[in-house]
Amino acid sequence: MLSQMLKNVRERHPLIHNITNYVTVNDCANILIACGGSPIMSDDPQDAVEITSICGGLNINIGTLNARTIPSMLSAGKRANELSHPVILDPVGAGASALRTETANRLLDEVKFSVIRGNISEIKTLALGISNTQGVDASSLDAVTADNIESVIAFAKEFSEKTGAVIAITGATDIVSDQNNTYVITNGVPMMADITGSGCMLTAMTAAYITANPENILMATAASVCAMGLCGEKAFEIVAKNGEGNSSFRNRLIDCVYNLTADELEKGAKYELR
Amino acid sequence: MLSQMLKNVRERHPLIHNITNYVTVNDCANILIACGGSPIMSDDPQDAVEITSICGGLNINIGTLNARTIPSMLSAGKRANELSHPVILDPVGAGASALRTETANRLLDEVKFSVIRGNISEIKTLALGISNTQGVDASSLDAVTADNIESVIAFAKEFSEKTGAVIAITGATDIVSDQNNTYVITNGVPMMADITGSGCMLTAMTAAYITANPENILMATAASVCAMGLCGEKAFEIVAKNGEGNSSFRNRLIDCVYNLTADELEKGAKYELR
Amino acid sequence: MLSQMLKNVRERHPLIHNITNYVTVNDCANILIACGGSPIMSDDPQDAVEITSICGGLNINIGTLNARTIPSMLSAGKRANELSHPVILDPVGAGASALRTETANRLLDEVKFSVIRGNISEIKTLALGISNTQGVDASSLDAVTADNIESVIAFAKEFSEKTGAVIAITGATDIVSDQNNTYVITNGVPMMADITGSGCMLTAMTAAYITANPENILMATAASVCAMGLCGEKAFEIVAKNGEGNSSFRNRLIDCVYNLTADELEKGAKYELR
Repeated sequence: MLSQMLKNVRERHPLIHNITNYVTVNDCANILIACGGSPIMSDDPQDAVEITSICGGLNINIGTLNARTIPSMLSAGKRANELSHPVILDPVGAGASALRTETANRLLDEVKFSVIRGNISEIKTLALGISNTQGVDASSLDAVTADNIESVIAFAKEFSEKTGAVIAITGATDIVSDQNNTYVITNGVPMMADITGSGCMLTAMTAAYITANPENILMATAASVCAMGLCGEKAFEIVAKNGEGNSSFRNRLIDCVYNLTADELEKGAKYELR
Repeated sequence: MLSQMLKNVRERHPLIHNITNYVTVNDCANILIACGGSPIMSDDPQDAVEITSICGGLNINIGTLNARTIPSMLSAGKRANELSHPVILDPVGAGASALRTETANRLLDEVKFSVIRGNISEIKTLALGISNTQGVDASSLDAVTADNIESVIAFAKEFSEKTGAVIAITGATDIVSDQNNTYVITNGVPMMADITGSGCMLTAMTAAYITANPENILMATAASVCAMGLCGEKAFEIVAKNGEGNSSFRNRLIDCVYNLTADELEKGAKYELR
Repeated sequence: MLSQMLKNVRERHPLIHNITNYVTVNDCANILIACGGSPIMSDDPQDAVEITSICGGLNINIGTLNARTIPSMLSAGKRANELSHPVILDPVGAGASALRTETANRLLDEVKFSVIRGNISEIKTLALGISNTQGVDASSLDAVTADNIESVIAFAKEFSEKTGAVIAITGATDIVSDQNNTYVITNGVPMMADITGSGCMLTAMTAAYITANPENILMATAASVCAMGLCGEKAFEIVAKNGEGNSSFRNRLIDCVYNLTADELEKGAKYELR
């Protein structure tokens, strides 16, 4: 039951340590509160390990990474592993530069992740060493379509087996998979690509979902992905009705997460389990 | 008259130097403009002292502090003291990690603050060396209630005497105190805890209030705390009516500060002077 | 035709590398998407050159600069020059501190800019070495008025000749000039000064306009300045009607950029070519 995943976030109020980029950090904090979690941000090597220790889960996002924050990601990730805290990776822009690709790969080598969430180009970069990444958006050459979905599912299962992490490949169609089971999710609207931070916010929210549901990482991740897509649909309705644009869409998306009920999630989630 | 404090901010348009965290910095800048002040952000050791010199007041907020910004806080704080500029401290997360607690204590040792604003757990950490801090929110174990309010007031007065600063302990009930007099303020709504940055924004706005009212730091701080709580009430009314969530609440809170009149503050402020 | 400039942004979808301040970075990303571009932020010396290589244009904004980001600005700027990418400079707070003024001057020495956009005080600092800059807002002593507009135009032409860049001096009246021709633009509303980031957002959007229109930097810059002012007018209408404040104004401004059509820009642009 996806709805139980949401209920657990609201009841357990997980405290999430975020080492994330400064572009979307405010949105990540507000969506974490909106879904029922509690955010704390800390990225200095002197602070990160201790902050992770008082939290329940860790969100590592490599957008705008720099020489100071990389060691923080590694040391906090290792500490979270020692404490058996769920850890999620958002490999923003992996494939777009050597620093990003190498940092993501080093994180995968040294930290055990519960979930890896990215667009198809980023995940291909990590799994295969190659992709068509351009900037921080997925390349259209990599798009998940009806024609290639079976092979993408197989690819996700294989990468999950290799890493031990649930793999969340998000886009028009979302794939959430462990090595055996895959949720194919079709919630969402194209306007989600018209704001910065849709992906970052989803990763942050997923950190809360998996931290509140450590016994069920796959379903918790699927619930978070469905919730975000469903809230995108709701936000789009309001924005379209009011003739608003992408900045209002961002606010209404977070608002919808704040107001989303377990019942609405259960009824509105559009997925197929394969 | 609290209303005079607000009028002075709008007339004197104080320029505030902010060394603050990157999570809520945009909201701090916009609320400073909304209340009638003018923000400038600068946190590099090479820049901070000079920027503080051209400003009227300094806001030091230790959220997301790092090795580069700590020396900037110390040197800008000392320079502001030399120039007799009001300086305010927001000890975000003091008690949550050694770096935060030690930095806050070092700032208290080396810089004279006009105001220290935090939640009860943060202020207890600074005053007593212990608290029940968890993350960046106050612990429920530390909550100010009808039963313990007398002892919290006594505690605030004592800490004010020790530091020479006005102490603002904010939460469901706000305590604003110097060593002799205390405002007990009951403006505000619970939804203010459902956004990131309520506290940071209040500290930033208070910097403007005290810089515009240097002859009356206690009343200026009380006026800022009442104004924020009152605007929270107004914002909540709109959000509740429209069925919006926490992201819209943040925007409407800043909007309400922008539109708040001296008269509304005078009539809407809910406080008792003890 | 200004409208063609806008159409080219929407069709060519330019990818813009931003090295910018953390105060307004989220707004810059969202307005870049709103206008039809695509943002990527990267400011570490190890990452910036490579990221700029995969982009079409570069936006350098010196707000909140620090010891780590200055070398990134210089190296990315030089790489962008080698690749003949349009590069824009926003000299935030030039004149307010030695670090800012010196960094801006060093950038002008070592990087060739297509456009320099600032307020009159910032541009005077760069061109003349002196100004009345206070903080990050233009000094009223420097204001462009009916009385001095001829001399400001001559000044802008001269600075354009010296730097080879189109000069955009924005305020109540905007001057966009190369060494021969000047657009005097009167779109806009005073409320644009009541949010943080009006200038930063305009610079970011202009980066997209000039990258999509490299053959016509002057007209592209003028189109961007007109578009921003026009969207300010539209946003103000909504905000005034609804009794909203500056935070909503920011959102509605970005929304209006998102919804602006080529036709509306053509009809709504208020400028004179001198």
